[in-house]
This record gives sequence, structure tokens and C-alpha cells, in this order.
Amino acid sequence: MHGYQSRESERLRDQAGALVDLLHSDTRYPPGSQVLEAGCGVGAQTITLARNSPHARITSVDVAADSLKEARTRVEGAGITNAEFRQADIFALPFDPAFFDHIFVCFVLEHLSRPLDALAKLKAVLKPGGTITVIEGDHGSAYFHPESHAARAAIDCLVELQRTRGGNAMIGRQLYPLLSAAGFDAVHVSPRMVYVDSSRPDLVEAFTKRTFTAMVEGVRDSAISAGLARPEAFDAGIRDLYRTSESDGVFCYTFFKALGTKR
Amino acid sequence: MHGYQSRESERLRDQAGALVDLLHSDTRYPPGSQVLEAGCGVGAQTITLARNSPHARITSVDVAADSLKEARTRVEGAGITNAEFRQADIFALPFDPAFFDHIFVCFVLEHLSRPLDALAKLKAVLKPGGTITVIEGDHGSAYFHPESHAARAAIDCLVELQRTRGGNAMIGRQLYPLLSAAGFDAVHVSPRMVYVDSSRPDLVEAFTKRTFTAMVEGVRDSAISAGLARPEAFDAGIRDLYRTSESDGVFCYTFFKALGTKR
Repeated sequence: MHGYQSRESERLRDQAGALVDLLHSDTRYPPGSQVLEAGCGVGAQTITLARNSPHARITSVDVAADSLKEARTRVEGAGITNAEFRQADIFALPFDPAFFDHIFVCFVLEHLSRPLDALAKLKAVLKPGGTITVIEGDHGSAYFHPESHAARAAIDCLVELQRTRGGNAMIGRQLYPLLSAAGFDAVHVSPRMVYVDSSRPDLVEAFTKRTFTAMVEGVRDSAISAGLARPEAFDAGIRDLYRTSESDGVFCYTFFKALGTKR
Repeated sequence: MHGYQSRESERLRDQAGALVDLLHSDTRYPPGSQVLEAGCGVGAQTITLARNSPHARITSVDVAADSLKEARTRVEGAGITNAEFRQADIFALPFDPAFFDHIFVCFVLEHLSRPLDALAKLKAVLKPGGTITVIEGDHGSAYFHPESHAARAAIDCLVELQRTRGGNAMIGRQLYPLLSAAGFDAVHVSPRMVYVDSSRPDLVEAFTKRTFTAMVEGVRDSAISAGLARPEAFDAGIRDLYRTSESDGVFCYTFFKALGTKR
């Protein structure tokens, strides 16, 4: 049993790894380059970022001290030595103009009410010729089989809550116009679609259930408190999301990755 | 002016070509193999299919005599010699059991009220070890920026009209469960996402405007006659779809391609 569970969690890790690869594998920074990770949160992306560019120097900033503390613990625990942390607000960055060779931003713009202003602030600390990489999800890109109005309504609760907090849960599709409007050059956006059917049971588990549905389920109380859904309706939506993880179910979601250059 | 227009239509052809490649490029049949194209319509896919497998023998069938006539003219005009046409109903195929080495079905299941029965009929004329390839769109996979309720309502008219006629405009996402339920083995589905922003003006023209929006626009009168939309509302939706083709617009759509094997 224990052996089975080990193999099982190993496979789940591999599948989570497949998602990490989908988003990160084409981001590698040259030795010696100064890279800013803006909005690192608890460091969920920092380990991958630092490992994929072992000779780059990563500076990871976040506005929240408690997140930074967790990030530091996590990254040190992973034996990463090329990332350092600093508490900073994206809108008031404590760096010299044009200090960084490259900038990396993942799952951050979705939370900001002024993403264009944030991009302008980031651009200011980027060297001419340097790149910015932005990765965001898009909850409006989620669709599934069996189709379900209840599931869609539950997802809409998440979108609406994020909007109420000033964010945009459907920002992924907007990366091209945003980076273009911020004045970045040669903007290129590539969608990274996650397609899950039951031929990939590990991805069903790692993405459909433990990532997406768990995320929607996580806003249950907030959505109900905010009057966005009745408990029974929300729970029916969650059941329908789990229903898409059965043998005849299908789940689709798309992340967007943008690359732009500062003139 | 003429020179410009020639270059322009050449570029449009190239971009339409990019879409054809996206769907067809990985379908190549061995020399001498007998391939059934089921539901060839006016032969829109037949030329590509036959050209990509020049030494396979393609038999293209459709239930509609007038479509077949157009297909024959078009395919002969293209100098294709390895495709022949035959009028036949997918539900009453005039072929011996296990006659074909491979089967190809593109944009057909979406029109059928009993797609699973159709797959069973097709399976009967396929040799053990032979493959079926199915390509379908999914209108529920369309999303865009700027977001628009009116545009979404116009698309829903198309989905609803197709449903009224017994079809399913969102069948793409269901290919895995359908082929599995039909008893095909080793079913593998790969989504083919079309992502369009203004860095690809030719794709904006060829896909967002001339393919998708034109298709929705094409059901205007039927949708209004059927009472699915008021003219002003529908037209607002079409305007909003064209709006996604402007410089800050983005359009996303996903086709699904499935491959299965007969045991």
C-alpha cells in the first residue's frame, strides 16, 4: 500500500511537473543575467525559475512580508542559491532604472487593478534590449464535457470575486494588447492549452480536480457570503466540475505566455 | 493595385494554408492504402487529404448528390487523381465489412443527431488494426477580447440552430468519449488551438473575419426567423466579433483532432 501511494504521489508530482514544463520550459536566462521576478508570492514559481537558469541571478519581490517569508523558507529548503528575496511594491520598485536584464511575471497581473501601470513600472527597471515574460491564466478559457450551467456559474463566482477585488481572472487573453500598450516591442503570445481526458488519469487528478476544481471550491464561502450564489447552486456546480473528471469527461483550460522586448 | 491584390490574396491563401496545416499535416496514409473520407461535402478537405497521401486511394462519400458534383469538379480541377466519389449515406454504407484501411471524418459528426451510431457504422467497414481520424470544431471554445455578451449571444444562435437541426456545434470536446464509447482503441485527442492577435494580420483576416465571424453572420436570417435573436441584437454581436479583429483585439478557437484504432 505504501509503495503504491509513493508511486501515486510520484506520478502526481510528475503530472504537476508536466504543467510546470508547459509554462516554464522555454524560459532560460543567460549566465550572469539579472532577473527580476515581480510578485513572487510564496515562491511557487521561484524554484523552477531559478533551477531553469542556474547561473542567472534572480531577485524575487513581493509586497506581502508573510508570503516572502514562506517563499524564502521554501526556496532555501530546495537548495536554491541563485534567488534572493526583497519586499517591494511593483508600483514603487526600489531599483535603479534599467537595472535588470530580464523580468518574469507569473500569475500576478490578474490580481492588479492597473496592470498597464504595473507593466510601465516594470519596464522602467528593465534594460533596453531586455525581455519581459508574463504568464497568466484565463478562467473564461475553461470549458468541459459534460457542459453544465451550474459549473459555469460557480466559475463565474470566482471571476466576479476577483473583479470585486480589482483583479481580472480573464486577463490571459489580453496579454498581447496589454504588453503592446505598455510599449514593449516584438510582443509574442503563445497559448498553453491544458486538455484533459480520461486517457490521462494523472492529469485529471492533478489539474481538473486538484488544481482547477479545488480553486473554484476554495471560494465557496466567499461567494456565498458575497451573495453571488446559493449554497446548493454552488455545490451543484462543484459536483458538475468533478463530474468532468469521470471516464467520459473532458476538461480544457488555457494559460497564456507573453514575451516582449524593451526598445 | 493589381499587384498588391495578388500578393494580398496569396497571403490570405497562405494563412488559410496555415489552418489547413494545423488540422491536416499529421495525417499521411501509406501507399496503396484504401481510405474512406466519410461526409466529404463539397470536397473542401478532399484535395488536402489526397495531396498529403498521394499514393493512397481515397474514396470520398457524401449523402448529397449536389455536394458530390461540386466536390468532383473541384477535385478534378485541382488535378487530383487518387480520389474517387460515391454517393452514400454514412448510416448505410455500400462497402464490404472491414474494407478500408483507414477512415477520415472532418466536420461531419457535428451535423449528425446520432454521432455514436455513425461511428459504429464506420467502424464496421474498417479493417482491424485500421485507424479512424476525426476532426471537429467546437463553438463553445471561442473566446475573445474585448469580451461581449452580444457576440456570445450571436454565437449561441448558431449553436442553437445546429441543435435544432439535430447537430452539435460543441462536439469537438466530446471526441474522446465518443470514440471510446464506439469501441475504438488507443484513442488520442489533440486540440488544435487557433490564437489570433494583431501581430498576425493575415490570420485576423483569414480566420477571425472570413472564417469565424462570416460563419456566424451567415446564420443571421435563420436566427432572426427562428426567433432566436432580434436583428439589432444579432447585428451588435457581429459588430463585436469584428471588433475583436482590431489592433487590440484577440480571438481564440479550438479544433479537436482524434485518432483511434479498431481492435
